[in-house]
Formats: sequence, C-alpha cells, structure tokens
Amino acid sequence: MTPDEFRRYGKELVDWIADYHEKIETFPVLSRVEPGEIRKRLPASPPEAGESFEVMMRDVEEIVLPGITHWQSPSFFAYFPSNSSGPSILGELLSAGLGIQGMIWATSPAATELETHVLDWIAGMLGLPEFFKSASEGGGVIQDTASSAVLCALLAARERATSGRSNLEGCRGDLVAYTSTQAHSSIEKAAKISGIGSANVRLIAVDENFAMSAPALEERIRADVKAGLTPFFVTATVGTTSSNAIDPLPAIGRICRENGLWLHVDAAMSGTAALCPELRHIQDGVELADSYSFNPHKWMFTNFDCDCFWVKKRKELIDTLSILPEYLRNEATSSGAVIDYRDWHVPLGRRFRALKLWFVIRHYGVEGLRVHVRRHVELAQTFASWVREDARFELAAPVPLNLVCFRHRGGDAVNEELLKKLNASGKLYLTHTKLGSRYTLRMSIGQTHTEERHVRAAWELIQSYSPA
Amino acid sequence: MTPDEFRRYGKELVDWIADYHEKIETFPVLSRVEPGEIRKRLPASPPEAGESFEVMMRDVEEIVLPGITHWQSPSFFAYFPSNSSGPSILGELLSAGLGIQGMIWATSPAATELETHVLDWIAGMLGLPEFFKSASEGGGVIQDTASSAVLCALLAARERATSGRSNLEGCRGDLVAYTSTQAHSSIEKAAKISGIGSANVRLIAVDENFAMSAPALEERIRADVKAGLTPFFVTATVGTTSSNAIDPLPAIGRICRENGLWLHVDAAMSGTAALCPELRHIQDGVELADSYSFNPHKWMFTNFDCDCFWVKKRKELIDTLSILPEYLRNEATSSGAVIDYRDWHVPLGRRFRALKLWFVIRHYGVEGLRVHVRRHVELAQTFASWVREDARFELAAPVPLNLVCFRHRGGDAVNEELLKKLNASGKLYLTHTKLGSRYTLRMSIGQTHTEERHVRAAWELIQSYSPA
Repeated sequence: MTPDEFRRYGKELVDWIADYHEKIETFPVLSRVEPGEIRKRLPASPPEAGESFEVMMRDVEEIVLPGITHWQSPSFFAYFPSNSSGPSILGELLSAGLGIQGMIWATSPAATELETHVLDWIAGMLGLPEFFKSASEGGGVIQDTASSAVLCALLAARERATSGRSNLEGCRGDLVAYTSTQAHSSIEKAAKISGIGSANVRLIAVDENFAMSAPALEERIRADVKAGLTPFFVTATVGTTSSNAIDPLPAIGRICRENGLWLHVDAAMSGTAALCPELRHIQDGVELADSYSFNPHKWMFTNFDCDCFWVKKRKELIDTLSILPEYLRNEATSSGAVIDYRDWHVPLGRRFRALKLWFVIRHYGVEGLRVHVRRHVELAQTFASWVREDARFELAAPVPLNLVCFRHRGGDAVNEELLKKLNASGKLYLTHTKLGSRYTLRMSIGQTHTEERHVRAAWELIQSYSPA
Repeated sequence: MTPDEFRRYGKELVDWIADYHEKIETFPVLSRVEPGEIRKRLPASPPEAGESFEVMMRDVEEIVLPGITHWQSPSFFAYFPSNSSGPSILGELLSAGLGIQGMIWATSPAATELETHVLDWIAGMLGLPEFFKSASEGGGVIQDTASSAVLCALLAARERATSGRSNLEGCRGDLVAYTSTQAHSSIEKAAKISGIGSANVRLIAVDENFAMSAPALEERIRADVKAGLTPFFVTATVGTTSSNAIDPLPAIGRICRENGLWLHVDAAMSGTAALCPELRHIQDGVELADSYSFNPHKWMFTNFDCDCFWVKKRKELIDTLSILPEYLRNEATSSGAVIDYRDWHVPLGRRFRALKLWFVIRHYGVEGLRVHVRRHVELAQTFASWVREDARFELAAPVPLNLVCFRHRGGDAVNEELLKKLNASGKLYLTHTKLGSRYTLRMSIGQTHTEERHVRAAWELIQSYSPA
C-alpha cells in the first residue's frame, strides 16, 4: 500500500468509523446471526492475488457488521462497559502507525517513560497510596486485562511466601489463596495457571450485600494454619462483576497484615469511580494493599485492552518475572537507571498502549472524566429509583455506583423470558446473573454516550414487556 | 470529541502517519535520549481541563518522537522484525473503531468466526497439518505473544501429564520440561509461572549449528525417567532468536511420541517463511507436534500484537483454561455449537485482532506475502555473501533465512566497539548475541520496506567502521 493509498483509505476509514458511531443506534445491539453464519459467507481459501480495499470494506459492511454486538451502542447495558472514545481510538491508531515494540526501555524509551508517567498520574487521579508511584518502591504497568494482573500479583505473592523457591523448584508448598464467592473467575484461573490449584482457593462467604465476610475470612485462615497449610494471598474486590459488591478492605487488609498475606485489590470496573472524590470511599483501606488493578478499558473511555496494575514493591514483581537473555542485554538495562517492562508481566513484547491513555486524560481533563462518570452513576441511581417505584420489581442488591441488579417478582422463569424478549427486540442488550441463587437482571450503565433518554427507553421497554 | 472533530483529527492523524513513514529514514534509528529525559519534559500533574488535539500532537512531535526507536525504519536490523503495513494499521484502526470485546462468541460472533476462519486459512497457507484446523479436533487462536502461547501449551501439557490434577490440587508432580540452550527465555518464564520451576527445565545441548541435539535430548529424558521424574513437555524451535537455528523436528518428534511427551513448536519469527513452498522444509516434522505458534507481528506485516497458536486437540487446551461464571452463561455457549476464545488463553477479554490479519492477507494475497518474504531472504543471503568475501569478517552461524550472524575476526572488544559506533551513527540499528561464548553481530532483515539499498548502505557502513 503506497503512502497515497494509505492516506486515501485511512481517511475513508475514519469517515466510516464516524458514520458507524453516528448510526450505531439503528443496529440491533445484540448480533442476530446464528452460529456458523459468518463463516459460511467467507471463502474457503485466502486469495492468491491481492484484493482492493474497497472490496474488503464492502465485506466489512456485509459480512462482519451483522456479526457485531455493539458494545459502543448507548443502549449496551450488558456485562460491564467496555467503553471507548475518539481520543482513545486515535491513540490506538497512532500506536499502530508508529509500530514500535516496547519490550525494554531501549527499544523505545518514550513508550516506557510515558507509561510510567501516566500510571503515576492515574495513581494520583484515583487517590491511590503514594507507595504505588514510581518515585517510591512501587510502580505501575499496563497489562492486557485484570486476569493477567491478578495472575502477576499471585505469582509475586507466591514467590514472597516461598522465598523465591517456587520459581526455581516448582510450586510444591501448601499455599492457600482466598477470595469471596462473588469474586471474578480470573482468580481461580490464576490459581490453576500458577500451580497453586483451584482446590487451594477458598471462596469466602459473603454478607447480605454480597461483600466478603471478614470474620469468615479470618476464621478460615486460622483453620488453614491449624491444618498446617500456608495462607499467602487474598484478592478483595471493589465492585464485583456480578453485583458491584464492595469488599471491606479495612478489615480484610488488617487480617492480611496480621497474618502476613499479600492483599491484591481488583477494582477492574469500579476503580474508575475513584476519579470522583465523593465516590472514593469505595476504596477505603486500599492503603493496606500490596497490589491494585483497574481497567481504563472498562469505564474510563479507553478502548480495549488497557488494564492498569500497581505493586507496592516493584522489586518483588520484577524478581518474579525477570529474564535476561544475552540478545536483550544493553547499556541502559545494565545501568539499572531504566524500567524494562518485559519483567512486569507474562509477555515479552508490548505495544505502546500509554499513548491512548495519555490522549484520553488530556482530551477530557480529569474534571471532564469525572463529569461522565458522575452522569453514569446518576443514571443508575435514577434507574434504581424507577425500579423501586414499580411494585412488580425489586432491587436485588445495593446500587453503590453504575450497576443495577433487579428482578421481576414473578420468579426466575419470568425474568429469563423477559431478558430473552428484551434482547430479541434489538433495542438494548442486558445480561443476567444469579444472586442468592435467584435469576437477576443486570443494568450496567457506562457506555461513553449513554444519556438519560437511553436509560429511560430501556426502562419503558422493560416495563412494557413485563407481566402485571 | 464530536463526530466532526473525530473526522478532522482522524484524517490529520492518517496524514501524520503517512508523513512519518515517508520521512522515517531521516530519523536516527535508535533513539538517542538519556534515561529520564522524556519524563522530564512531561508535566508532573494531569490537566484538570481538557486540552486540544493540536497541543497533544505537538507533544507527540516534540516529546514522544525523539524517544522512539524506529522499528518501522527500513534500516532497523536489530533483534527481530516487528514489521507492519498499511492494511494492518487500518485493520487495527477498524478494530478500535468498532470497540467490541470478543471474550465469547455471543459478544460479537464475527470476531470469533473470522478468527477461526483466518487461522484455518493461515494453517493452509503455511502447509501445517490438517489436524490443526478447526474442522478436525484442533484449532487456532490469536494470542498476544509467543510467550503466552508457550505458557498455554505447557499448561495443557501439564494437565495431560497429570490427568487434570495440577489444575485442581496444584503442581506437585515431578514434571520435567525440555528445550535447547538456545531456546527463547519465555520457556523458562513459562516454567516459573506454571509452578513447574526453572530447575525442572532441561536446557539440552546444541550441535555445531546451534540446533538441539536429539541424542542429547533422548539421553536426558532416559536419565530423568530413571531418576523417577516425569518428562512431559518439549519445546523445539524453528528459528531461534539468537541465531535462527532450526531444531530437528523429525527426530525430536519421534522421541516425544515414544516417550509420551507434548511437543510444542515455537516458530515465532521464522514461521512466516513457510508461506513459500521452497522454504517450507524448515518445519519438516511439524506433523509430530501437539501445538505450534508463530507471530504474524514479527515477519508477516501485521502490527504488534498478533501471535497465532494452534493445538492438535482443542479440548485439552479448553479443559485446562475454561471458566464459566453465571454472568457469562448464554444460549450459544450452552449449545456447544460455538467457540468461546476466553477459554483458549490467560485473559478473559479480547479485542478483534483477526481483522488486521484478514486485511493483510487480502491486501497482499498469499503470493504478495511470498514476494516480500523472498526478498528478505534473498537480501540476507546477499549480505552473507558480502561477509564471506571480506577477509576481516566471518559468518558465525548458518543463514537459513533472513538473519545473518557475523563478526569481525578481531575479537569481542572490536565487535562491541563496532556495534556501538554503528548504532551511534543513527543510520541503522543492529544488536548482538553470543554464540559459542563469542560476541556476535546480528543482521536481521524483515522490515516491510527494506530494499537492497538499505542493506548495501548498512554493509558499507560496517566496512567503513571496521579496522583492517
């Protein structure tokens, strides 16, 4: 592709994306294709000769678009937000255009230093402890997802608990990890990957608000110690995926301190709320954490992937994951004056993801980000008030932020049927969970362009589809 | 950012990227900034109010650009290629613009089905065994890097060797993994992460061409079995990072079959060569592999990140990594008729990376891709012939493809000094390795726009800086 062709097709694509966002509300939010339908339209073999960009974009329209579930629709209320924004898309484009690979400082110093800098900025923006900043013994790094972040936290904790022996000899200890029954599946996955084993993850009971019971945690740790096991790691959640429950960090942190356990705080979706001082109470107790992560790619207007992960002592993380083959040796690394992020996560290579974060923060400004977060929280509170006012419905959990868990009082079958009908309408997309074993609808509000009219239309549709 | 602003800034950025590529040869290839220099130019705090895109792009020019090491320069000969192309950048842009999160089939069927389809295409394009295709019991998936791919292979092998007990009870076996002394550091890293332990990775001796010695492998497996240990996993490399050595897959594969070991083939950089039938011999024996990976983000004109990973039996991988919390349950998944790629790797979330691969393959066509690969291989062979003709130099390893390992006969200090001087010139970027404990220069040819004139200029500079 010549530079002139790139200019032409690039600009056409920019227009295509702008058009897409302008007409996004005309698409059914949840894709309607059947399994295998997309593949059936694709040729069995790749072309031997090159094809034109026009033909490729026609196929994007005709084949790909019907198979898209529109996460960027303002009526996407499913799962959790994975929102985006103009500056973020442009940051991603610039990153792809520069095409650098920032595995170590020397392979593009700007990628490393901008990342360190922006993660220090964000630590300040969220009011996180000073020890997470790079001027202290800690520091932040961009991971792909919160799943990878909790894996890295667990690995560093494993090495701390075994004085580095697990890395060398394998994981032969009797290590035990803790989280709540409501925590994210990635914690069990990390325990499997790391050789801890899922049977050695204790799922601690939750209270009536689906938050981890600190007394139950303490009791279980005591029992495990008594049984000769080695408790080493707790993941507390600030905003569970299922119901946005907020674990009591102060009590959990105290237990971790007293028992020498690593505390990881997973605030994947809800962490963004801490941009707003009046919402920052959700992370009270975070000063007791050893590591923390949240996803700007969920609720902070930054396109996937972008998880921010901080550790209190970067040396523990680096000692756990560092490798240094001869072909990566260089003066800057040997001097110890630079950060080589390859030693902060699983992959060696890395792209320049700090750019999009930098663009997002600068485009909105911190106050601009707060405006959007506050709007989402207010919309959720409004939606919750409507649920409360309709006698057919009930709230299924507290609504601390932007997720409303609710259900029709008619029971599981009614709710299941209601969800199916709503999503088939194409006008919105909602998903479900189970709370106290009861089928529950989830209204997750966090898409960049969601306004009151979208939330109101959703509620009116829910009401109109609901039996008396 | 309004749609109109997005159109305007997006088009400006497309032009900026085209300009960057048009003038890329005017920049010093290796960034010249000192540690901390970029950060010093950035404000200590993020802005409270939003800033204009113009100001951000000015800072990209003035602050970021000097800190870029230009991987897309045609005179970038360091490490390995991480090449890119117009269609790939546009594919990444489209992916960011759509902003979908393809963790499961339902969250955008097109993302999953296009990925399966394109990976089937590529398996065919490379002449990989049919069992890796989705119509058989195998299948392919996009991972971020070959590091993550080998980790997933090792985990699936671990579960096969322990009948799924490691996932449950933790990794308490006496499992032993094998690779060569020249293999990638990611294998040791995967052994640490997975609870196998680096002491349980045997680094098998290599022959005079730096390829794994199959007899030494067989001998070591026998000794480990005799010692009561459980050999379970071998990683063979098609094109080592250090010197492009090609391990003997037929012999290694036979040993794996006879001893019941999982064979993973890491062809991260060199795998792309198999697009050309006349180079496909590098992977002879791949029909004995259980898993295979290569990186289109290295040599196949696809911007980072994009690793393709295939397994012979997808069930083994999925059983190892699957999770299914209530909030991800859905009809399509329950039906078993679809692939949910979240169960094929570490992260849960995933972006739509198949788009850029699809764009690259269609833009070039398979024959177009081959043209570029052949040019790189020919340029490397030409460069090697020049080295042979200059009595001051010697080749340090065979040159099967596009990497030339060579050195001045003056010894380590001369080569080290030469490398420093070359990179300080700004006219190219080369890196080094050690082969047989001797300091060796590496000329890696694979940037999309590298032509003979760039390689010739590099050689002339090397000659002019070299003592008699």
